Amino acid sequence: VTSLLSRIEAVVGDDGVRVDADVLERHSVDWSRTAAQRPAAVIRPASSDQVAGVLALCRSAAQPIVVQGGLSGVCGAATPRRGEFALTLERMSAIEAVDTDGLLVVAEAGAILQRVQEAAAAAGLLFPLDLGARGSCTVGGNIATNAGGNRVIRYGTMRNLVLGLEVVLADGSVVPARQRILKDATGYDLKQWFIGAEGTLGVVTRATLRVEPRPQSANSALLAVPDFDAVRTVLSSLRRELVGGPSAFEVMWADYWQSVAATRARLGLSLDGAHAYFVLVEHEGFDDALDSERFAAALGRLVERGAIADAVVAQSARERDAFWQVRDAVADVLSAMRHPVTFDVGLAAAGMPRFLERLQRAFEARLPGTRAVHVAHLGDGTLHILADAVELAREHEVADVVYATVAELGASVSTEHGIGMLKRDYLRHSRSAAELAMMRGLKSLLDPSGILGRGRILSDPA
Amino acid sequence: VTSLLSRIEAVVGDDGVRVDADVLERHSVDWSRTAAQRPAAVIRPASSDQVAGVLALCRSAAQPIVVQGGLSGVCGAATPRRGEFALTLERMSAIEAVDTDGLLVVAEAGAILQRVQEAAAAAGLLFPLDLGARGSCTVGGNIATNAGGNRVIRYGTMRNLVLGLEVVLADGSVVPARQRILKDATGYDLKQWFIGAEGTLGVVTRATLRVEPRPQSANSALLAVPDFDAVRTVLSSLRRELVGGPSAFEVMWADYWQSVAATRARLGLSLDGAHAYFVLVEHEGFDDALDSERFAAALGRLVERGAIADAVVAQSARERDAFWQVRDAVADVLSAMRHPVTFDVGLAAAGMPRFLERLQRAFEARLPGTRAVHVAHLGDGTLHILADAVELAREHEVADVVYATVAELGASVSTEHGIGMLKRDYLRHSRSAAELAMMRGLKSLLDPSGILGRGRILSDPA
Repeated sequence: VTSLLSRIEAVVGDDGVRVDADVLERHSVDWSRTAAQRPAAVIRPASSDQVAGVLALCRSAAQPIVVQGGLSGVCGAATPRRGEFALTLERMSAIEAVDTDGLLVVAEAGAILQRVQEAAAAAGLLFPLDLGARGSCTVGGNIATNAGGNRVIRYGTMRNLVLGLEVVLADGSVVPARQRILKDATGYDLKQWFIGAEGTLGVVTRATLRVEPRPQSANSALLAVPDFDAVRTVLSSLRRELVGGPSAFEVMWADYWQSVAATRARLGLSLDGAHAYFVLVEHEGFDDALDSERFAAALGRLVERGAIADAVVAQSARERDAFWQVRDAVADVLSAMRHPVTFDVGLAAAGMPRFLERLQRAFEARLPGTRAVHVAHLGDGTLHILADAVELAREHEVADVVYATVAELGASVSTEHGIGMLKRDYLRHSRSAAELAMMRGLKSLLDPSGILGRGRILSDPA
Repeated sequence: VTSLLSRIEAVVGDDGVRVDADVLERHSVDWSRTAAQRPAAVIRPASSDQVAGVLALCRSAAQPIVVQGGLSGVCGAATPRRGEFALTLERMSAIEAVDTDGLLVVAEAGAILQRVQEAAAAAGLLFPLDLGARGSCTVGGNIATNAGGNRVIRYGTMRNLVLGLEVVLADGSVVPARQRILKDATGYDLKQWFIGAEGTLGVVTRATLRVEPRPQSANSALLAVPDFDAVRTVLSSLRRELVGGPSAFEVMWADYWQSVAATRARLGLSLDGAHAYFVLVEHEGFDDALDSERFAAALGRLVERGAIADAVVAQSARERDAFWQVRDAVADVLSAMRHPVTFDVGLAAAGMPRFLERLQRAFEARLPGTRAVHVAHLGDGTLHILADAVELAREHEVADVVYATVAELGASVSTEHGIGMLKRDYLRHSRSAAELAMMRGLKSLLDPSGILGRGRILSDPA
């Protein structure tokens, strides 16, 4: 390893290889805080050519590598395994171009999401991806996980925001990010292979990203809704009545709402009473006065129809922020649990109540007394289950119950966080043997020695 | 072949195999009308399982197959080669579900695009893909070519409209179209591999498609614009000022405008005079009165700034239709040429004038007197060149000059029509050896015997 590291140092420079204990510690685990493992070294290339040089050397030496972005993932895709080098693009964080005419931004993969948002905003534009980890997550990580985030129902996932990718393959070859246009029909669209691949197929080093004109208005409301059919009615009405549709539609079950009572009290939120569902809805538009009027009118009609029992419309950015604090109080909920386990299963909105009934019954049969609360991004089909396993030993049992229900109802094991190492053994609940074989085939094609992200998504080769 | 056909007939039924001369003739060539070749048989499966059975038999017999949709492609992807069977999904054209709540349509791949549009419209929804061949092209063909069409700058290409795909692989296995939600993070997104693959990697048999609320207003204008910088100013202003941006922005060079003089005269179009560029712009919205007012106001400001020299706003659906007739008079232009050759090269709008200057110089140097006219979909980077090669023998020379310029300026060989057989030898102008090797790798992985669309996109294996 020492001789390999010195050869790598010759490529990336003195500052490009770190083995100090504090640096290794910082790179030892993602936000799951599970199965931390210090990498054998942290490699910090400063250019795509350096990444290529590093990969070529590692491949010759059969040295495994894990690619890291902001380490804000929660499924262990970026957590090192014993003996791996951590490859970080923190020295490749430049925002290289903001093209207001072509509506695009070119950034190195190590660029922090928030910096990209700010660069776009400074030019009067919007980079639509937004998520809680904006201050630490990177463009490369957003691509590796095909991030969706807070506005996904309006702007789509990262896949829809990427025009071109530069990728370094495991053999050290560089596939350039040529495309700066919306369409291209020159054979297979290779960049799609790497989006959502969690760093297992190549190292994304640079991206050309789409930006949009910056919205001029934002309207937010918290709604109390009597039943799930009404929740669906509210979403489908607002999709038709608000131009462009809502940008967020976050559903909180009463169980979640109760468990964030302290947060609500602190914020002085006036919406209260015993309702079955609470919804945070947001719309962005281009005409401040008119959009507010239409937003209020659309909600008013739903109140008249009985689909909304109670509503508070944000009158200021501060109130809007308070709504999001309630929605984002997941961390408080989890910290009040003895051993929390979280899930991001996927299914069409219509199927969610049935899914939860089945799950409830399965818990009662196999793990009586299991407590869980629920939040959904209804428009994109994500159902978050925040369960308390009470003790570590029961964590796997809780997961087994949830994923058995996923398999039974043809749902998805993950819509947001991905598979990584932590959900790898459950992937077969959503994907057939034939699909897994196709994935393995592509993995072998691009990384025959298996040096990149080994054991993430797919299990280790036998 | 006869014994293979009788085994196939056992799978697809009597009506599933046709060898009548008139049927073979109908399946012998796409809209390019180039290199027609009757297939050895036309196979018409009626279900995914039948497709799987046919592929398994053909694979065992090493029988090559070309998959056909509506045959409206123009690069020979669906034109048979000698000895191939044509596989058509014309018996698999059902629109199986229209889900107004989930905003999706499920259709078999043989469904005609226009039927999908109509099914969505009947439910008050919009399936956004639209193109001239709507009455004959199929969902499967739209997917195989990653079609963009008339509204691509507003709604994206087919890739952005596909939620899930059912695909039959060359070995006869069926990969199901499970996904009905916007996001999924369960490993590699396999469906992406098949979108835009021109039928070379598998047979798409069924798709889950996204639909949108149906717009309530449409505004169209024809603009005369003094120079190319002004054209770009108009586009970027309208992108900022019209909610959602224009749905179409079609630029006609003066050379094209002159060559459609007869069509314009027949339609009595009042916009005239010597201008450098003419633009058809269209916007769709949700508020008839307000949208018209804003559309006119936005154009008015551009007139004041001198970016627009003259404008006609459509006052009726008939006038709007006339505008599109001028834009779609490409066929008339081509029929007036002695030996037309057409191109759909791709590059950022900013680079188009320089590209055309270079091309003009290259024509003068190598093929003096070559006449060409130009149309661009500016928002997505497509530049159509309609050139007259005058005689068949010069067709390749014209293409060589165009694609040499493409290579020189790092442009794309195709943004719309794809590669097929006719542009295969030019693909290397847009794609590196490493990229072509990646494509070959995926092709070998999924279709090791090379029975599907052999010689399309990639050349025949050595």
